[in-house]
Amino acid sequence: MNFQSHKSLLQIRLGKKIALCFIVCANSLWIHAQEITSPNKNISLKFELKEGGVPSYQLSYKQKAVIKPSSLGLELQNLPSFMDGFTITNTAQSSVDDSWNPVLGEEKTIRNNYNELVVTLAQAKNNNRYIRIRFRLFNDGLGFRYEFPKQNDLSYFVIKEERSEFNLAGNHKIFWIPGDYDTNEYAYTTSKISEVPSLMKKATIEINSQWPIKELSVQTPTMMKSDDGLYINIHEAGLINYPAMYLEVDAVNNKMKSHLAPDAVGAKGYMQTDAQSPWRTIVVSDKATEILASKLILNLNEPTSYKDVSWIKPVKYIGIWWEYFVAGKSTWAFGKENNVKLTDDFTKLTPNGKHGATTERAKEYIDFASKNGFDAILIEGWNIGWEDWIGNWKEEVFDYVTAYPDFDVKAVHAYAASKGVKIIMHHETSGSATNYERRLDRAFQFMNDNGYDAVKTGYVGKIIPRGEHHDGQWMVNHYINVAKRAADYKIMIDSHEAVRPTGLHRTFPNWVAQESARGTEFESMGGLAPDHTTILPFTRLMGGPMDYTPGIFQTDLSYYGTGSSQRVNTTLVKQLAYYVTMYSPLQMAADIPGNYERFPDAFQFIKDVAVDWDNSYVLEAEPGDYITIARKAKGKDAWFLGGITDENARTANITFDYLPAGKKFIATIYADAKEANWDKNPQKYTVTKVVVTSKTILKQYLAPGGGVAISIKEGNASELKGLKKL
Amino acid sequence: MNFQSHKSLLQIRLGKKIALCFIVCANSLWIHAQEITSPNKNISLKFELKEGGVPSYQLSYKQKAVIKPSSLGLELQNLPSFMDGFTITNTAQSSVDDSWNPVLGEEKTIRNNYNELVVTLAQAKNNNRYIRIRFRLFNDGLGFRYEFPKQNDLSYFVIKEERSEFNLAGNHKIFWIPGDYDTNEYAYTTSKISEVPSLMKKATIEINSQWPIKELSVQTPTMMKSDDGLYINIHEAGLINYPAMYLEVDAVNNKMKSHLAPDAVGAKGYMQTDAQSPWRTIVVSDKATEILASKLILNLNEPTSYKDVSWIKPVKYIGIWWEYFVAGKSTWAFGKENNVKLTDDFTKLTPNGKHGATTERAKEYIDFASKNGFDAILIEGWNIGWEDWIGNWKEEVFDYVTAYPDFDVKAVHAYAASKGVKIIMHHETSGSATNYERRLDRAFQFMNDNGYDAVKTGYVGKIIPRGEHHDGQWMVNHYINVAKRAADYKIMIDSHEAVRPTGLHRTFPNWVAQESARGTEFESMGGLAPDHTTILPFTRLMGGPMDYTPGIFQTDLSYYGTGSSQRVNTTLVKQLAYYVTMYSPLQMAADIPGNYERFPDAFQFIKDVAVDWDNSYVLEAEPGDYITIARKAKGKDAWFLGGITDENARTANITFDYLPAGKKFIATIYADAKEANWDKNPQKYTVTKVVVTSKTILKQYLAPGGGVAISIKEGNASELKGLKKL
Repeated sequence: MNFQSHKSLLQIRLGKKIALCFIVCANSLWIHAQEITSPNKNISLKFELKEGGVPSYQLSYKQKAVIKPSSLGLELQNLPSFMDGFTITNTAQSSVDDSWNPVLGEEKTIRNNYNELVVTLAQAKNNNRYIRIRFRLFNDGLGFRYEFPKQNDLSYFVIKEERSEFNLAGNHKIFWIPGDYDTNEYAYTTSKISEVPSLMKKATIEINSQWPIKELSVQTPTMMKSDDGLYINIHEAGLINYPAMYLEVDAVNNKMKSHLAPDAVGAKGYMQTDAQSPWRTIVVSDKATEILASKLILNLNEPTSYKDVSWIKPVKYIGIWWEYFVAGKSTWAFGKENNVKLTDDFTKLTPNGKHGATTERAKEYIDFASKNGFDAILIEGWNIGWEDWIGNWKEEVFDYVTAYPDFDVKAVHAYAASKGVKIIMHHETSGSATNYERRLDRAFQFMNDNGYDAVKTGYVGKIIPRGEHHDGQWMVNHYINVAKRAADYKIMIDSHEAVRPTGLHRTFPNWVAQESARGTEFESMGGLAPDHTTILPFTRLMGGPMDYTPGIFQTDLSYYGTGSSQRVNTTLVKQLAYYVTMYSPLQMAADIPGNYERFPDAFQFIKDVAVDWDNSYVLEAEPGDYITIARKAKGKDAWFLGGITDENARTANITFDYLPAGKKFIATIYADAKEANWDKNPQKYTVTKVVVTSKTILKQYLAPGGGVAISIKEGNASELKGLKKL
Repeated sequence: MNFQSHKSLLQIRLGKKIALCFIVCANSLWIHAQEITSPNKNISLKFELKEGGVPSYQLSYKQKAVIKPSSLGLELQNLPSFMDGFTITNTAQSSVDDSWNPVLGEEKTIRNNYNELVVTLAQAKNNNRYIRIRFRLFNDGLGFRYEFPKQNDLSYFVIKEERSEFNLAGNHKIFWIPGDYDTNEYAYTTSKISEVPSLMKKATIEINSQWPIKELSVQTPTMMKSDDGLYINIHEAGLINYPAMYLEVDAVNNKMKSHLAPDAVGAKGYMQTDAQSPWRTIVVSDKATEILASKLILNLNEPTSYKDVSWIKPVKYIGIWWEYFVAGKSTWAFGKENNVKLTDDFTKLTPNGKHGATTERAKEYIDFASKNGFDAILIEGWNIGWEDWIGNWKEEVFDYVTAYPDFDVKAVHAYAASKGVKIIMHHETSGSATNYERRLDRAFQFMNDNGYDAVKTGYVGKIIPRGEHHDGQWMVNHYINVAKRAADYKIMIDSHEAVRPTGLHRTFPNWVAQESARGTEFESMGGLAPDHTTILPFTRLMGGPMDYTPGIFQTDLSYYGTGSSQRVNTTLVKQLAYYVTMYSPLQMAADIPGNYERFPDAFQFIKDVAVDWDNSYVLEAEPGDYITIARKAKGKDAWFLGGITDENARTANITFDYLPAGKKFIATIYADAKEANWDKNPQKYTVTKVVVTSKTILKQYLAPGGGVAISIKEGNASELKGLKKL
């Protein structure tokens, strides 16, 4: 279907069910209900005006209800609401089927195929003030948004609350974290919707700078599974100049509704026409693998306006980082003092003797990176201010341009450049975004001057402007400002503790990755549940790449003799599998170099694995249980596969039909040993080279909390010789 | 007196009244009361600990009570207060008598002469946490501040409220404006302290973005006069990293106490040791002239740390400005639209045909400035964004680097440079300080690139970060950040709608002037009372220079035929006098050039008058009634005198004893004509040249709402010939 006017549409559909509505609702200028289907006809969306002119939509998948009739609208501050009193003054339908190429991604080419319905809704009682609701129905789900066109009687308005309802068809299984304006680093709870209220208190564990929402709510991406086998994911796309959305939960009636993060004075969005909300997304399928493969959120984001993207590159890196969490021997801070100011002379501090980011240490890491083919090293703790950076709601925490006395920026850069290694800058803000913004040009200029082309940003702490939240409109704009300004300096961004992603890496492709969830660092602080990483791809990663920082080989942290009894709750091989299952074009090998040197055969996978891809194949998946994904390296005849399981052992069914037919390939299989186990025996693994073809089927054992990793390449006759065929 | 230890002090004072306290309070390690006097012995300060370890001070002038015993202290958030439970653990006295030279000023050299008392106060109940209170007693008054030294148990704290009391000795006459967190542009009310409550509602007139304080309060500088003839001025000095202070008024007991501006979450100051409050200042004298001559506030500010100040220069300027208020024919905005974004293409707007800041208009002003010897012209409305800049709490209002389509920055700069005239940049922020800060480096670089060396900043509107106030700690730091960053680019700042000044132009001498009070613009919006400018030097100007924008010759605004019945409530000559009575090293001739061309003889005074001075002489003054000041131009044998009166005619008693003795000088006297009157006949004046000597005494008539202006220079024999000797 191509663009067609409302009139032609009416002609096409007259005599069908639309006509009935047309007669029933004859008091209106236009029809009161509209229905569209997805290109493959599996999904159907119906929009209608309910009694009182209330907008409503419903969504079904293969005739099963996904969203029962649900109201749409917004309440405004000091203005009549956009909740009711609407009439439909125009509708338009269109179809799109095209494709585009992301700068970095899981697929070289992404198909963008949807049918669209745009409804214009006017309020006669408010001087015909009007909005539009735009629905885009893909084969993998629905996106809709509110649009506020420029018009005489609507220029500026403030949102009191968005009231988008998501009335679910049953008491689904739900994978959730508590709604919170300031953190998304909660552990996941798996329950029925009806159980959310009773589990909320337990789920709301203590986290730095948290601000749990008073109203019962969960964060998006929210992953659900219905009793009749539908997988449903609710999130948003293109979060720009608007607060993040949470879902308030009516656990009795299986209803959810939007709840926006407020600002310092309780407002939820300062809007100026033309304006629009982000897209509200509902990805749905009867196959869990199709949820992971969905590109709906990316498709709903705007193409980038960057003219030159040649400087945006995938990065595999190591860093002076994990040792701060586990080794107990090094610190971000240089001095013993716990009260410092940027105006202090840091050469006068009393060295604590444990400062991690020294020139010498940096050179060791550079040597290791260079020797093992890493693109870059991250160095945290290089800059002054760490002595009392946290917990004081302090504004002038860091200046981003002054190194500690024992870190020589120029020398480190020169050494790194001589070894062909980049340094990743670190800009922890301590939540003081105002301080960061006013220093941004200088900080980025400093990076340009000293050869840095990527920065890890951090927002640990209560936000300044005080009263603002990590997920509020002001901070949402802040992260984007940072990305845009970084682009002026050809700098890539990896943000930590920022609002969770919504596919904006399409629009701002230098915002290459984010943390924005409970990542590896928490393995040193209580550990992550073995099923955590089987959930993250269905939740957090729906929005975009995650800098999960995998690759921990030394999982028993008592190893360091610091008295810690913590452990990383995976087998060693599962850490390898993450390089494939946890997509990111910026991927860390997070462990301390010495640990990689102890396991050189396993480390080979990390050295080999790609981080940017031509194609991805989700072979198996069940949220909370397992995921198996294969991917083809960007521009190379090399494939990598990762499979993970939760706390239960399982046998993965691995196919190879994505390989070119008729050829033989060498597969190096990194597998849990039979006796391996995440909590008792994590470092037992086997590395086996075998021959595979596109027809090979592998039943692969995964230990409890374990995984499998496979690298596949073409092999010539001599390489293949002597290898067993699977 | 020089530095002396506490022990020697005890030896000196033992046997006097201090000894009594020492015995009475024997439970303490140290004495409980301390007394110091001003260098000239006129003023006496007593500090003591009251029952419960409550700090208290009292102040007297020539044995008259100025401040009766008043408590000092602070309440903290989530920590025990600094209100009581103190013991004195140390005291120290010292004296200073030196001098310094301001970069720009009313005096070439300023004497800094005080006796100091520092009391260290510890709280045994709080682990001996301690503070210091530092008192500096000058011949013209007292400054004191709280100091929070670095110590083990005190690094970070948040002020809930400062509780400094100012218990006055009577029901004084008071010149006041209502306490307000966001504006200081109120008209003054003159009343008894006891009348403040009943007059508050009337005094709280409507002003853009006002936030009147709930508690009955007035703003500082607060000017008072006691029944027994003492002039008392309360303000603060060195307002850095702290909120502005207001005075809560107990109108029954004549008591005042400090009240700080809160931040977005209600906190009143985020402190990190070492830290200190600003100085609380009490200037006192039995002569009103000595209040105006006081340099106490400047002396309490820190010397500048700027190495090079050669680029900071006095500026006399005209501007495309007053026509926006009165002529009704020009606007800041270029387009007719009332909904624009910085991302819009402004060449596509519909021109409103009234845009003021065009290239052509700028050239006309440049011609006028060049012809008449002005240093610079201010051009407001040159940059995109004015169509909807106000009232929308919009963040991205201006970008500071993009001109309207009809204003050619390069061409205007080239033309101005060819004529030896500078352009003053205009950075209105609409209160969106975050937007300004993140663009500051680029805005200042743009100024450097295009030949601007001074900028008028503006803060009309509700502050962003939302919830912050113009006078809160965050904005206080913002204004200073702007000044410091401007210094990096050798740019001078003239801030409008910022927090009122506290002498920081000593520390940041490129922050050359501020508005921060009800200035000339209000003459076009209701008018200023004829006594307004006889009060301002006793209030607003105590803190620093005011960009009052005087020089309005066409005072009857019906002249413009726009239907306005407004008028500037002065005679023409009073406008001339302002160039001397309203001190500023950045001084505007605010009227439209055409009006100056109509009164060339009066305009000559504005062309001649200096704006930077070697010496100033306050000849006569009474707050609310009259002021007469003479000043010697910096580095020149030229003197200028201004005298003003309120709505009443008066005869000024003008002396010339500041002129070198034994010489004859030519005085050009700009005087109100006998029939002149501010409201009926403002433009009648005489210009007379006479000969004066240091012994001359002139009884000069000032019309109701009128003034007098005199320029004095040495004259050679031929010039003196024929002139009448006064």
